[in-house]
Amino acid sequence: QARNEIIEMNVVDIAHFLEQLEEEKLLVMFRLLPKEIAADVFSYISSELQQYIIEVIADKEIKSIIDKLFLDDTVDILEEMPANVVKKILKNTSQDRRELINQFLNYPENSAGSIMTIEYVDLKKEMNVKEAIDHIKKIGVDKETINTCYVMNKNRRLEGIISLRKLILSDEETLIEDIMNTNIISIQTYADQEDIAALFKKYDLLTMTVVDNENRLVGIITIDDVVDIIEQENTEDFQKMAAMQPSDEEYLKTSVFNLAKHRVLWLLVLMISATFTGNIIRRYEDALLSVVVLASFIPMLMDTGGNSGSQSATLVIRGIALEEIKLKDILKVLWKELRVSIMVGSTLAIVNFIRIYYFEKVDLNVTIAVCVSLLITVVVAKIVGGGLPIIAKKLKLDPAVMAAPLITTIVDAVALISYFSIASRLLGL
Amino acid sequence: QARNEIIEMNVVDIAHFLEQLEEEKLLVMFRLLPKEIAADVFSYISSELQQYIIEVIADKEIKSIIDKLFLDDTVDILEEMPANVVKKILKNTSQDRRELINQFLNYPENSAGSIMTIEYVDLKKEMNVKEAIDHIKKIGVDKETINTCYVMNKNRRLEGIISLRKLILSDEETLIEDIMNTNIISIQTYADQEDIAALFKKYDLLTMTVVDNENRLVGIITIDDVVDIIEQENTEDFQKMAAMQPSDEEYLKTSVFNLAKHRVLWLLVLMISATFTGNIIRRYEDALLSVVVLASFIPMLMDTGGNSGSQSATLVIRGIALEEIKLKDILKVLWKELRVSIMVGSTLAIVNFIRIYYFEKVDLNVTIAVCVSLLITVVVAKIVGGGLPIIAKKLKLDPAVMAAPLITTIVDAVALISYFSIASRLLGL
Ligand SMILES: [Mg+2]
Ligand SMILES: [Mg+2]
Ligand SMILES: [Mg+2]
Ligand SMILES: [Mg+2]
Ligand SMILES: [Mg+2]
Ligand SMILES: [Mg+2]
Ligand SMILES: [Mg+2]
Ligand SMILES: [Mg+2]
Ligand SMILES: [Mg+2]
Ligand SMILES: [Mg+2]
Ligand SMILES: [Mg+2]
Ligand SMILES: [Mg+2]
Ligand SMILES: [Mg+2]
Repeated sequence: QARNEIIEMNVVDIAHFLEQLEEEKLLVMFRLLPKEIAADVFSYISSELQQYIIEVIADKEIKSIIDKLFLDDTVDILEEMPANVVKKILKNTSQDRRELINQFLNYPENSAGSIMTIEYVDLKKEMNVKEAIDHIKKIGVDKETINTCYVMNKNRRLEGIISLRKLILSDEETLIEDIMNTNIISIQTYADQEDIAALFKKYDLLTMTVVDNENRLVGIITIDDVVDIIEQENTEDFQKMAAMQPSDEEYLKTSVFNLAKHRVLWLLVLMISATFTGNIIRRYEDALLSVVVLASFIPMLMDTGGNSGSQSATLVIRGIALEEIKLKDILKVLWKELRVSIMVGSTLAIVNFIRIYYFEKVDLNVTIAVCVSLLITVVVAKIVGGGLPIIAKKLKLDPAVMAAPLITTIVDAVALISYFSIASRLLGL
Repeated sequence: QARNEIIEMNVVDIAHFLEQLEEEKLLVMFRLLPKEIAADVFSYISSELQQYIIEVIADKEIKSIIDKLFLDDTVDILEEMPANVVKKILKNTSQDRRELINQFLNYPENSAGSIMTIEYVDLKKEMNVKEAIDHIKKIGVDKETINTCYVMNKNRRLEGIISLRKLILSDEETLIEDIMNTNIISIQTYADQEDIAALFKKYDLLTMTVVDNENRLVGIITIDDVVDIIEQENTEDFQKMAAMQPSDEEYLKTSVFNLAKHRVLWLLVLMISATFTGNIIRRYEDALLSVVVLASFIPMLMDTGGNSGSQSATLVIRGIALEEIKLKDILKVLWKELRVSIMVGSTLAIVNFIRIYYFEKVDLNVTIAVCVSLLITVVVAKIVGGGLPIIAKKLKLDPAVMAAPLITTIVDAVALISYFSIASRLLGL
């Protein structure tokens, strides 16, 4: 009875349900699943449980799961497994499939080859619509998608694509050749997943073809996997922008050591850089000694500079990622940031003037030094924040690295130099 | 001849090509497009050009475009147009469609109602597969998708969904009732787009049904629009995390005034908060006066604290957004951050000790004060950075606000208090 309730559920929900069970119950339940569902559910459970299941079930059972998995999911699973489990899986895979798997495992991480799958429907352009639909009926059940079909010649060169929609809405006698779409958006096997995602977004695709150098169809990529890629690329940007080396492991599943490892390098670099800022202060020790209140405005200047720069950098990095800002827009961006920074900087300077001169009754010259250097800092921060990501892109670096932490460190120096030099002059130190 | 080349192109490319032309040429080209393509192209060009075209073309032409647009795209276009253009469009729309448009325009921004469209295929459960396919052939051409069809009763209550794939792969005599999927993932009209995107990601959906309180089907949402939503929600998080009020306008198209407006508020708030940090320094003026070199380590302590906190906050905010970290995980997160911060903090403190004691030959007590407060700062920063986003979520605030800028401001105070109090004690000030 429990079984009947479960198989009515969505496979994703079944997977989550199984993950909550104890290992033995999990196994009993998993074995009760009908074969068609079992493979699907298997692809959605956590890799720890996948490993457990593979380790305890019989070879025959493994074979029946692996046979039903799509190739891209098989490869994803294998990538996470230890060597002995990989061995056990490959032992229970047919010769051709094993060769395919090994080939797919060799594609570089995050390349089109590592994302694509091969369960697609192939048609011939000489077929008419009725023949095509009959062909789909015959082979479609094992395919990842039949919504788009691929028209190839004898050498497996891609000649056109055609949607099931078009087939259904066309006359039975029409030749595929006459209705297929020859304006195909495809990508090479070694293309990066970021470019793939960009094409899916630009053209509102549901699937994309992956071809080799000779335009032979080698696989297809489907939108459900691209959605995951989009989130991965965003996570990567969030991590880089917060001065971490990116990792696609889930936070709660990452070891403390690995978390620390991904964070410490950038912190060290930025810490060392920040000591140079400290040297600026040391150069003005005399000024500080005579007017010690100067020190108390350092945090405000540094933080406001950092935040201002980070705002600009974030918008520009994001604009570049979404392809809304191109390299050639650099002057437009700088001109925009200049005007924005003057507006924002003056507002902040005025508010600050009122607060520290009228309310805190700080000396007029000190107040002027604080407010003028605040304005200068905001302007420089926004110009640097807006410009650096574009320059990085031009140098083929990842713009996401030019974010808050790095900009803060640069802008700190500017803030302190302008602050102390203005103050020294005004106060005659 | 140009026309023939163009209509072979993808509609998205045609739209980009038209955007590059002068207005008059654009109009000539646009008018040359076949009717089926024109509406599609129209939905992909920039809203400035959409407005220009609507303003100059004849009523009859408007009608032929609007009739062919999907309702969701029509609504998106109308939302961007000034009142007179909206009037001109609605004047050329049939009575029923006008009513529908007005209803859709009333759904709150970013709700399911504002994203869904109504061009779907409806079936009846009494139909068999052959009848269903015949029905699709008859009405499918105007539908946004026929890949998923919706089975409704006479009261438009949703009873099941069925994919075209299933129809094609089933026997012609089979009743829809027997093969339709009754385990439907649907959402209410007023649900937020973030929740919609989460469901698409979780279940790998291509379409989702939107229903009203009585489970009547009111529309469908398609994955291509959800992909845009995912990027919008990420942009929103990026902006909030950089202390900006979010906006979904493209950077280059946003006015300087609007850019400034979205940035200045948070900068003001954080600037005022940072002055409290300044007060801490003022409290320790005597210490500073006797050992003025203390001031030169302030930037390094503040920046390292800010960066450490921002790393943790970013990972946790991202984990919450991807639903990998839940409210109940707060202790796990804090415990993890504690251990990571001790590892990272000690590394930084040791490197720093070597650098300033051995290389810069700074006084031992000052060095100890710097290194111990560095460690304390990193630990506090990571605990605060890891904890605040979860607490925000618990308080139904957006975790994304608890990012670098706010955390920096909080951590600055901790850094300075521990630094000066340790230094005062060690140096006997
Ligand atoms: Mg893969
Ligand atoms: Mg799109
Ligand atoms: Mg897949
Ligand atoms: Mg997948
Ligand atoms: Mg990448
Ligand atoms: Mg990237
Ligand atoms: Mg809309
Ligand atoms: Mg998914
Ligand atoms: Mg749409
Ligand atoms: Mg759309
Ligand atoms: Mg939102
Ligand atoms: Mg959000
Ligand atoms: Mg800072």
